[in-house]
Amino acid sequence: MGGDHGPAEVVKGVSIAAQRLDVEILLVGREEEVLAEFEDLPDAVHLVDARDVIHMADQIDAVKAKPEASINVGMNLVKEGHADAFVTAGNTAATLTAALLRLGRVPGIARPALGMVVATSDKGPTMILDVGANADSRPAHLVQYAHMGAAVMELSHGISSPRIGLVSIGEEDVKGNQLIIEVNRALRASDLNFVGNIEAGQIPHYVADVAVMDGFTGNIFIKTVEGVAELFFDELRRAVRMTPWNLIAGLLLRPELRKAQRRLDYAEYGGAQLLGVDGVVFISHGRSNARAIFGGIRAASEAVRNGVLAQMHEIAGRVPARGLIETSAANGEDARDSR
Amino acid sequence: MGGDHGPAEVVKGVSIAAQRLDVEILLVGREEEVLAEFEDLPDAVHLVDARDVIHMADQIDAVKAKPEASINVGMNLVKEGHADAFVTAGNTAATLTAALLRLGRVPGIARPALGMVVATSDKGPTMILDVGANADSRPAHLVQYAHMGAAVMELSHGISSPRIGLVSIGEEDVKGNQLIIEVNRALRASDLNFVGNIEAGQIPHYVADVAVMDGFTGNIFIKTVEGVAELFFDELRRAVRMTPWNLIAGLLLRPELRKAQRRLDYAEYGGAQLLGVDGVVFISHGRSNARAIFGGIRAASEAVRNGVLAQMHEIAGRVPARGLIETSAANGEDARDSR
Repeated sequence: MGGDHGPAEVVKGVSIAAQRLDVEILLVGREEEVLAEFEDLPDAVHLVDARDVIHMADQIDAVKAKPEASINVGMNLVKEGHADAFVTAGNTAATLTAALLRLGRVPGIARPALGMVVATSDKGPTMILDVGANADSRPAHLVQYAHMGAAVMELSHGISSPRIGLVSIGEEDVKGNQLIIEVNRALRASDLNFVGNIEAGQIPHYVADVAVMDGFTGNIFIKTVEGVAELFFDELRRAVRMTPWNLIAGLLLRPELRKAQRRLDYAEYGGAQLLGVDGVVFISHGRSNARAIFGGIRAASEAVRNGVLAQMHEIAGRVPARGLIETSAANGEDARDSR
Repeated sequence: MGGDHGPAEVVKGVSIAAQRLDVEILLVGREEEVLAEFEDLPDAVHLVDARDVIHMADQIDAVKAKPEASINVGMNLVKEGHADAFVTAGNTAATLTAALLRLGRVPGIARPALGMVVATSDKGPTMILDVGANADSRPAHLVQYAHMGAAVMELSHGISSPRIGLVSIGEEDVKGNQLIIEVNRALRASDLNFVGNIEAGQIPHYVADVAVMDGFTGNIFIKTVEGVAELFFDELRRAVRMTPWNLIAGLLLRPELRKAQRRLDYAEYGGAQLLGVDGVVFISHGRSNARAIFGGIRAASEAVRNGVLAQMHEIAGRVPARGLIETSAANGEDARDSR
């Protein structure tokens, strides 16, 4: 029921997923409104009634105040074992709240992170995280993010020994704010394939399989990419409308430009996974269209098949947040000792 | 002598400035190398010898170790009153170090900020700051940045009561990390024309005259814009080379695409001003070409004519950092009382 487009686009995406993927879909929302969007309800789709809705503009309190909201009903299906994963087009803050409330964190993971897999150059995808689950972070949080991102890229994308990059304002280890400098030190001492600091502008050029950032920076990053891409295509549309010749030129270049647009439209890709909560949860961007919903369902089903959640539990045991936090609080101590 | 292109592009930019602007230029560097780049030395250009060079790869220590480096000689010309402003293509960290060492801060300004005026839509320019002078910031620093940015847009760009936006991860006052939430509160209580939080992706759409960020975030932002723009034009070049028809299409659209490229090429615009140091200092981006050098000289001469430095002294007296820092240290206290 959430998302900018309401149930119509979700239903379209679900129908495609029911056709193309080997999944059973429990579709949660106001039954009559959801049913009205279908011409034929596919066999693989089962409606689950949920009377309340969290709107994009709602405050986070609404999640607690509306236990019958689709987001809460969906999380409960996962919690109670009726569903393997939950995919939502709802807003990030509400999803995070509902997930923490209903599923809780994986014991030992200090903070969940929102990990987004984005297309880069032709060479391959990069997971960037955190793109906005937490606005304030400590070094230990980002170290766990790196491990969680590595696990996803290894299990779901078949990349062995994923390259971990730490996003900073310079490639040297000493460049960055205090948070990043401490994380750099901890990652150097880790068993991850840490390629060092990378610059944000390099992410689209596939310099790492996992790009680690704090949630504030990560959110600024994806919003900037979206904003610049939008500006560019606005300019292009304006240019094409100026003369008939320009229009023809635009039509000629269109197929290739479409590819570039998709590469930069982070909203369209595969949704973002909420890593570190005790269940498989994907958020398709608020502007989600059918394509994004389908992508989210596909990514969620792959995450389930590839045992991503079990891996999060394994990481929580192997990379404790507590030791790292104490080390970083001890002001500049090498994090090596705490592992 | 600094910058990625060495003296050649600087000399070109200086020659254009000497022709078009009403300025006298003291050109600092190894005299024989600089002279060799000129066909004719313009009357308005005077060479000042400086034997040492800070290279882009040099550590900051080099600034102290090489008093005869062009960057130090140039700063001294300003300090001793022989020059009204200093423009450099050297690296940001070295420039900041040399400025603090030779000129010092404006008394009362807690941290200098690097302010960059960028083209947005057709409607007007926006100053973004800090784009990288300080990696770690406190609320009081950003509040002073807002005032400094407002002063520049008012004096040098003729915008009365400039709209101040605070870059965050949501428009509501409570969205952001702890730093931003405190700054939001202080700016609401200020006499500035504060339009509230803005999202990074909105900056190219001219939603504010001044966009305030901490230096880490600001640097991530401009690098992301550069990276995405680069990716886009790479894709476009690739598309144009695919068929002869595409090539013709590319040529037809070229003039308009050039405009979009310039709008997004933050390196080309006008250089960045180091605000809060006790002298007028502009940094043209390390990739600076002649156009950027000319832009930096023009912007610096305007800053001098418009009395920007005197205004920084006025702000330091009116918006003390100390009161704000104490208030923010008192954990969530309203900053209103400290003004």
